[in-house]
Amino acid sequence: MRHWLFLMITASLSCNTLAEQFNVQSPDSDIRVVVDITAGKPSYSVTYKGKPVIRSSNLGFQIRDQAPLQDNLSVLTEDREVIRQQWQTVWGERLQINDHYNELSLQLREQNGDKRTLGLTFRVYDDGLGFRYEFPEQANLQDFIIDEELTEFAFAQNYQSWWIPAYRNQRYEYQYLRSAVSSIDVAHTPLTLQGDGIAIAVHEAALVDYASMTLRNIDDNQKVFRADLVPWANGVRVYASAPMKTPWRTIQIADSAVALMNSDLLLNLNEPNKLGDVSSYVKPGKYMGIWWEMHTGLANWSPGSDQGATTERAKQYIDFAAQHDIDGVLVEGWNKGWEGEWWRREPTFLFDQPVDGFDIEEVSRYAQEKGLRLIGHHETAAGISHYEAQMERAFAYYQKLGITSVKMGYVGTRLENGKEWHHGQFMVRHFRKVVETAAKYGVMVNAHETIKDTGLRRTYPNLMTRESVRGMEYNGGSPDTGNLPNHTVLFPFTRGLSGPTDYTPGVFKFDYQKHRPFNRVPTTLAKQLALYVTIYSPLQMAADLPEHYQGHPAFKFIDDVPADWSESIALAGEVGEYLVFARKDRHSDDWYVGAASNELPRQYALVTDFLDSGAIYQVEIYADGEAAHWRDNPMDYIITQRTLHAGETLILDMKPGGGAALRFVKQ
Amino acid sequence: MRHWLFLMITASLSCNTLAEQFNVQSPDSDIRVVVDITAGKPSYSVTYKGKPVIRSSNLGFQIRDQAPLQDNLSVLTEDREVIRQQWQTVWGERLQINDHYNELSLQLREQNGDKRTLGLTFRVYDDGLGFRYEFPEQANLQDFIIDEELTEFAFAQNYQSWWIPAYRNQRYEYQYLRSAVSSIDVAHTPLTLQGDGIAIAVHEAALVDYASMTLRNIDDNQKVFRADLVPWANGVRVYASAPMKTPWRTIQIADSAVALMNSDLLLNLNEPNKLGDVSSYVKPGKYMGIWWEMHTGLANWSPGSDQGATTERAKQYIDFAAQHDIDGVLVEGWNKGWEGEWWRREPTFLFDQPVDGFDIEEVSRYAQEKGLRLIGHHETAAGISHYEAQMERAFAYYQKLGITSVKMGYVGTRLENGKEWHHGQFMVRHFRKVVETAAKYGVMVNAHETIKDTGLRRTYPNLMTRESVRGMEYNGGSPDTGNLPNHTVLFPFTRGLSGPTDYTPGVFKFDYQKHRPFNRVPTTLAKQLALYVTIYSPLQMAADLPEHYQGHPAFKFIDDVPADWSESIALAGEVGEYLVFARKDRHSDDWYVGAASNELPRQYALVTDFLDSGAIYQVEIYADGEAAHWRDNPMDYIITQRTLHAGETLILDMKPGGGAALRFVKQ
Repeated sequence: MRHWLFLMITASLSCNTLAEQFNVQSPDSDIRVVVDITAGKPSYSVTYKGKPVIRSSNLGFQIRDQAPLQDNLSVLTEDREVIRQQWQTVWGERLQINDHYNELSLQLREQNGDKRTLGLTFRVYDDGLGFRYEFPEQANLQDFIIDEELTEFAFAQNYQSWWIPAYRNQRYEYQYLRSAVSSIDVAHTPLTLQGDGIAIAVHEAALVDYASMTLRNIDDNQKVFRADLVPWANGVRVYASAPMKTPWRTIQIADSAVALMNSDLLLNLNEPNKLGDVSSYVKPGKYMGIWWEMHTGLANWSPGSDQGATTERAKQYIDFAAQHDIDGVLVEGWNKGWEGEWWRREPTFLFDQPVDGFDIEEVSRYAQEKGLRLIGHHETAAGISHYEAQMERAFAYYQKLGITSVKMGYVGTRLENGKEWHHGQFMVRHFRKVVETAAKYGVMVNAHETIKDTGLRRTYPNLMTRESVRGMEYNGGSPDTGNLPNHTVLFPFTRGLSGPTDYTPGVFKFDYQKHRPFNRVPTTLAKQLALYVTIYSPLQMAADLPEHYQGHPAFKFIDDVPADWSESIALAGEVGEYLVFARKDRHSDDWYVGAASNELPRQYALVTDFLDSGAIYQVEIYADGEAAHWRDNPMDYIITQRTLHAGETLILDMKPGGGAALRFVKQ
Repeated sequence: MRHWLFLMITASLSCNTLAEQFNVQSPDSDIRVVVDITAGKPSYSVTYKGKPVIRSSNLGFQIRDQAPLQDNLSVLTEDREVIRQQWQTVWGERLQINDHYNELSLQLREQNGDKRTLGLTFRVYDDGLGFRYEFPEQANLQDFIIDEELTEFAFAQNYQSWWIPAYRNQRYEYQYLRSAVSSIDVAHTPLTLQGDGIAIAVHEAALVDYASMTLRNIDDNQKVFRADLVPWANGVRVYASAPMKTPWRTIQIADSAVALMNSDLLLNLNEPNKLGDVSSYVKPGKYMGIWWEMHTGLANWSPGSDQGATTERAKQYIDFAAQHDIDGVLVEGWNKGWEGEWWRREPTFLFDQPVDGFDIEEVSRYAQEKGLRLIGHHETAAGISHYEAQMERAFAYYQKLGITSVKMGYVGTRLENGKEWHHGQFMVRHFRKVVETAAKYGVMVNAHETIKDTGLRRTYPNLMTRESVRGMEYNGGSPDTGNLPNHTVLFPFTRGLSGPTDYTPGVFKFDYQKHRPFNRVPTTLAKQLALYVTIYSPLQMAADLPEHYQGHPAFKFIDDVPADWSESIALAGEVGEYLVFARKDRHSDDWYVGAASNELPRQYALVTDFLDSGAIYQVEIYADGEAAHWRDNPMDYIITQRTLHAGETLILDMKPGGGAALRFVKQ
């Protein structure tokens, strides 16, 4: 159910005067944008609290077989809107979202040549801005190819930045680099920057039918970047037909990096729910699954003697899940096609045929009997046409079995037998098709190795979560190049800004001597619990094996912690150092806090002023034990309970690679 | 004058047994190397204090038109040496260097095919190890092309790393990236790593006639790297003729990153002085020059009205230098060929023809009359053949004028009109020719944009210093993408390990409103002084204009600080955070300390136990003022003097972007 509050003032001016500079600012006036069309060349600049953030930066396009669309433009119309509204999420980090912005829309027309028309809209919020281009219907621009988007970001300072490289083999699955922005070659977004008392993140919203934007340093070793759209295999950046709108180019701005995580800019810039009432199948929750035992070498995706996906093993998971507050059980390797080195060949997966030894009908029935659901799995090995040919049937199959959630994978360095990038318009189109097909059959989507998040979950609320990060799997897999202890307190400041992350926390057994002697999960157990709060996902995995959870009182936190929130507050943190989040359960008055550190120990004084003023809470604290250390002693934890008045301060003592998880139950 | 102390025990074993594993360890037994020839495939591994540092890593070559040279090898001879000697530097960070190592040399021979022979020598010191290959004279390997060096570095942990990317346009002139080693694509050396209580730096020594080594992540996102030799334009990595030896591949190892800076490994692995007595012209010292006024837009390299190089201006510098302890004055733009955009065209420089308005004979005479020297300048604009055609004449010209020092430049993204990398065998050969020619005419070399340092200064003591770093010039130049405050406390831990750095500190005026409104030098003035101690160079510039030094009592520190040391101790630091160095003047009993911070303020308790025990010193302290801050108030400094007993502790209070410089005069 959604409540809309509208307050809209529209001032539409049709002006034939030669106005060349247009100002638009955030409701609180801290962010000011100047759009300049001097000498026919559009550009923009941004300041925050009087300090420059983006210096004059070009706008425009290179359309194939046409003159550059960035010169000789004059302003045809200027429209302004003042929006103060609020909307309600279907699920998410918070229930109510304020959508307050000031908008400037310009229609620009070329003064000569093809006299093409280009729209340019800026929306300025208190937490950042978005701008996009619009190609209205017109005679000289109908079906066309975008060879280059000329949008620039001329950073005002040589900010410190955190980023992952684009155009590499492992998609978004890199640990983050920290450097002066001048040292970046080409980076994926979100790109997070900090300096001069300002934190900035550049990304995009509503990537619906376009290539994803990467940012390229246009003058190596300097600090002016240009949108670099990930191309199709044939070099085309975008196939477009007017009328069309590009995604929003977003610049989130705040006083600190941690404050960026409280921004709703991306969701606000996406279209409202197109699916209507999805409450019959869209349910945030927790899941377990036959998966980590494959990564740690105990079982295999392939059929045969070490086959992970068996009816018996699935029932063990279901039995454990049914005794706990776990809503779904995933089974990877359940279907035919996993034989041998499946990632090296043309895909052979069949999406409606279970492998021998796995009775999917029985397992799904058993799960439902126990009050939960089997979670489907579609690994495509990056073979898109192979998958699309079966896709409709595959989702219908799940619907028939009562499966309402699917985890998907696109393992491979390029799509379609090495041809297409994971981040071009090709993948954007494919993935939207997946999400729409899943919705048609009442299935939630959790996608790995897919295109980055740009907030489309608002429009398609069955699009729950995705990986697009170097996940927990790297800590278990072979070779033994796991994530550093700082990774989990870094990516929420970068990747995390884009949306939910299926990182899969919850590992309680930290080494795998037999098959993975050199592997380690680089946290303490208490920090694993903290990740359920510091990393947001509406589908949150309990990644470890049932037998590894047995006898651990700490599992109660995983039982208790919800996956859907009415409020979320990033309380404190520094990129790659530590992070503290407080979130309120959407379905009770309980609050949860997660605090996580990198490899350094640290204390954090948690002021509980987010709790209901005057109320009393029972607080359960899961903390690192005195001798806890991610390297030598990760399983040392202590659970304490006490009564607390809202507003009291708790000292959280995090050990190296450690953290703390807290549950506040209102009395 | 050099003193040699020899203690050598040689154990040469000719063994035809099938020994397959060979151990060699450091004198203190902390570093242990295992060389393994099991199944004919050579590999090595390294541990430090029992912890793995390098796991089993392949060795070998791919020679053009031959089978890979890494299989079917058996051990022909095993030689061992135990060396305990000491040698004296001509100039440098310290007078005496201990050269203590254990050596293992193996002769390997293929069991079939061409029966090629390959030598493999490991030298293990307390501060690291070096290993190199040798191609002895043999029938089936005479003149050959190396297509690939197969040396691998399989890091034991996913260490935190600091690095700059290879194969980019700006040579070594990048601010450093910090990331998990797994996020590296391809990096220049020195590559500095830290983790698990160990600090490591991978580099090379004695790059005499070979391509420089970069390190490429061979399985993207993992932690095994392979030597990637920078190729010639035609793809050849190395032209070789047996007998030949490769450079040493070096792995420095210590408990902390700061301790890496006390290592002499690179010099120890270079050949002794080949030039003999160079005392007539090789003199460490300080210089000023007509240079910073060009970078900050006050003057021009090109001839004409804003021409920086004029007789009058040079004499102003000489007058100032003569009143201070400055040994040389550089004049950039002194010669013909600087008209217009010289870096975009075929070079037009003439190296023995002064530009109109600059009377080089008069200036050189005037300098010598005042007791100092004019410093020559050779900018090549990366045009090697253009330069080499004039090189002999150019150095003879300087010799005739009494010029004993030259600063060189190779500005350009590639050498020879865009063809060759700056880091391939082509440049290595050229630069050695430069150094040898300079020696022939009694000239010291300070080279910018040249090949990285690998310790050749030991062999050629006229090879004084070089840039190979993103220098001070980036803070002054246009565009305004300067260095971050952490840069100067980061590169000494990486680039600095390779040898002297001509960073050119000493700026006393921090903004350039008129021509460079957005530029800043991101330090306090006190930190500028500290850099004379924290950054080592035997030729140390006082980079600012004479008029900017006028009236500053702080200039006394630049007057006093020497450029040649009898001892150097890296006392404390963290990569990119802070750095404290103590150095003892080679020609007196005085000590100097530099302490520098990044953008954060911090206090450092300096324990003066490096001073002569029981002695009393007069200490002069140049510190940040109470309100000093690199951004707003860099020129706030205080000078205090006091008497101090050796061993006392001084609290150094560094402000944001600040530092402290201390001079201890023995009483």
